Formats: sequence, C-alpha cells, structure tokens
Amino acid sequence: MSARNILLLSSSRLHGYGYLEHARAQLEDLFKSKNVKTVLFVPYAGRNHDKYTETVRSALQPWGYAVEGLHNKVDKAQALRDAQAIFVGGGNTFVLLRTLYELNLVEPIRELVLERGLPYVGSSAGTNVATRSIHTTNDMPVAYPPSFEALALVPFNINPHYLETDANTNHKGETRDERIEEFVAYHKRPVLGLRESNFLRIQGDRATLLGTRAAKLFKADGAAEEYAPQADLSFLLQQ
Amino acid sequence: MSARNILLLSSSRLHGYGYLEHARAQLEDLFKSKNVKTVLFVPYAGRNHDKYTETVRSALQPWGYAVEGLHNKVDKAQALRDAQAIFVGGGNTFVLLRTLYELNLVEPIRELVLERGLPYVGSSAGTNVATRSIHTTNDMPVAYPPSFEALALVPFNINPHYLETDANTNHKGETRDERIEEFVAYHKRPVLGLRESNFLRIQGDRATLLGTRAAKLFKADGAAEEYAPQADLSFLLQQ
Repeated sequence: MSARNILLLSSSRLHGYGYLEHARAQLEDLFKSKNVKTVLFVPYAGRNHDKYTETVRSALQPWGYAVEGLHNKVDKAQALRDAQAIFVGGGNTFVLLRTLYELNLVEPIRELVLERGLPYVGSSAGTNVATRSIHTTNDMPVAYPPSFEALALVPFNINPHYLETDANTNHKGETRDERIEEFVAYHKRPVLGLRESNFLRIQGDRATLLGTRAAKLFKADGAAEEYAPQADLSFLLQQ
Repeated sequence: MSARNILLLSSSRLHGYGYLEHARAQLEDLFKSKNVKTVLFVPYAGRNHDKYTETVRSALQPWGYAVEGLHNKVDKAQALRDAQAIFVGGGNTFVLLRTLYELNLVEPIRELVLERGLPYVGSSAGTNVATRSIHTTNDMPVAYPPSFEALALVPFNINPHYLETDANTNHKGETRDERIEEFVAYHKRPVLGLRESNFLRIQGDRATLLGTRAAKLFKADGAAEEYAPQADLSFLLQQ
C-alpha cells in the first residue's frame, strides 16, 4: 500500500473566492492530519518566484501556516526531505516540469510522496505534474522539458480547469473534449476532467472526488462518464 | 533573397464556409502563379490519413486540382522533390512535428521551400510547423516531438485560431493573450496572432497580411499592435 497523502486542485482560484480560499477546508483537513505547521512552496510554474511565494504566504499565513519557498533553499533535496508538506503551484506546466528535471527533483519528490508520505498539494500545473504525464495540460508549450513524463504520483492523467467548450461558438479551434479525446485515442489511457472547484484527494490507495461539481472521466476505451462529488475513484489508482 | 512562396492559413474552416472555401482565392492565386495542377497533401496532423486526404481532395478537385497523399508515397523525400506544391493540413501540431522528424522530412521540406521555391500551404498545425517553433500552438501536447524547433520557413512564431478570450467569463484558466505573453516573456520573440479568416502570404522576402480581419502582433518587447488586412509585415522576416 502506498503512503500517498495528496490533494490535487483543479485551480487555485475560483470565481467569487480569494486565492486558495475555496480549498481551505480541504487544505486544513490534510495539514491538521499530519500536524503541518510549515508548507514548502514550489514556485517554478510561475515567473517571479519571490512574488509568487508571497501570494501563497498571504493566503496560508492567516490560517496559521508558515510558507517557505523551495527556490530560496540551497540544498533543495534536503529541504524536501525536511519538509512537513509541499505545495506545487499553478502557472505553466512545461516550465514547471522542465525546472523539476533541471534541478533533479523529479525522483526525490516522487520517492518522498510515494514512500515516505510527504503531503503533496498541487494546483493546476502542480496537479498536471503530479500525474503520469503532462500530455493533458491546457498550457502553451513555452518551454521544452526533457520528457512529458511527470511525477506519476497517480498512474492516470488529469485535465485541470476542465470545462465544456461553448457549443454555439463560431470559433473553429478544437474543443476541450476533442483535445482530450485525441489524447485518449493515441494513448488509450484515462483522463480525469477536473472542473474548477473540484479536488482529488488521495490517501494511500484510495482516491475520492471532492468539491461541489461533477468530474468527467474520459475512459481508455473512448467512452466518458460523470462522477458526483464524494465519488470513490480508487479504481483509477489500480493500473 | 529567399525563393519562398508560402501561404499560411489560420484555419482550414471558417464559420459559414465549406472546408478551405474561404481560402479559395488565395490558394488559386498561388497555384496559378506556379501552374500547379497537383497538390501533395501532408496529412500527419490528423489520425486517419486516407480520410483526411479525401477531405482535401473533395475540396480541391472541383477547383481543378488533383490531390495526392504523402503518406501513400514509398519514397517521401523523392515525392517532395517531385511535388508542384505541398499542403500541410491542421490537426495536432505535436503529432505533426514528431512525424516530420521521424520521417526525416524537416530538412528536406525546409530546403525545398526556402531554396527551390516549392509552394507551401499550411493551415493551423501546418502553419505552426512552418514557423520557427511550435511553442505557440494551441494544441494539447498529446505527442512528444524530439524538439519544438520546426521548419523555420519564417523566423518568428504564429498563433493560429487567434482570438481574445471572453473577458467576462468566470473561468480562471489563462486567457489566450496571457499564454502568448508568457511565451514572449520567456523567449523575447514576436508572435503573430492570426485570426480565423486571415492568411499570411510570403513571397521571397515580402510578407503580406491577407483576409478580412486585423492580426495582432505580440512584439518581442512585450507590446502589442494590430495590423489591418493588406498590411506589409515583411519586417518580421528580417531577424
């Protein structure tokens, strides 16, 4: 059984809420269960690491959590080993994954989360890199990582910020569903479309959909199915 | 001076028109100038190469052009050398570029277009791969190409299907402008946002914006400027 203790957010912002505010109950639930007082923030999906860390600090500090930036640590592998929990923020998924490879942090994070139960919170790009690969990111490929294979903390893919594209538009670019179906057609692997406001909570070998909306699972065989909040998605971990 | 004879479409479909119909005048202008009777179609951005070739044939044959599929040619480099014109269709940019690399066609196409004036028509993904790199595609990265560097028939980037995202949406995913600005911030290179219905026509060292709408140029310094149809964009070729 895996030691996983993971919370994956579709987005860090939700309409009508402050930064991370919609996720407060889920974050506190995870952090309190592990007596987390300090969160190590991984800012590499953003451009200004100091400013980004300050944004996260402004959100978490009032709730009683200290925030440190991984970019400020000289020995990053050691900082990860010492961490009580990590939060990998959103931004550009390609830049984030490239940086994790450049800093040789992919394997250390993977091992700490899977084998030593380091609590992992990811949002948007931080959710993409937590999955098997970044093939289903919505981001523009502004950086070229050495691989699209990611942390693989879970063996399937997620599409964060998932939404159905307006069917009445005159625009001829592909819809989100068409893009995800294209991935499934090539790879025969499932993709969980996680709408803004949704979370995926993983504890060991158990995965639960949280939040206020349904999530759309694009199955490996090309079919799709909606799952309501509180749905048990543990079967996705068995691959 | 380059021998370039290129037509780059934002999209192959435009609301209210049949496949390629909105581009007919531009296509015929290019093909007639070179006495083109047969077009070699490059279908690799799509999944079903035969069906895709048939779609293109159904559009071009009534206008008097024969269409052949590059995927049916045993010696593809020879087929390109023998071609009167090539059309690289849209679909997934990552799949297209990976296939061009796998088949060792990047350098041959580049040389034929730049030095021998092989007429090149690209649409959507076929426009992305014609530019310096595919960093500014809208597509989902469903395949991992050995590089994001592309045919570089022009020394700048294009974002096809360009549109301003609805500013009134509650959705928190990045807007198109934010994504392109992110590319510019990292690379300090210009990106031409080509709206559906627009074309870029390149003859030698002259580039002209065609179509019915303005195009938005995201400049290397972070500023942006709109250009009206018929605008001379030759300055973009001088890099």
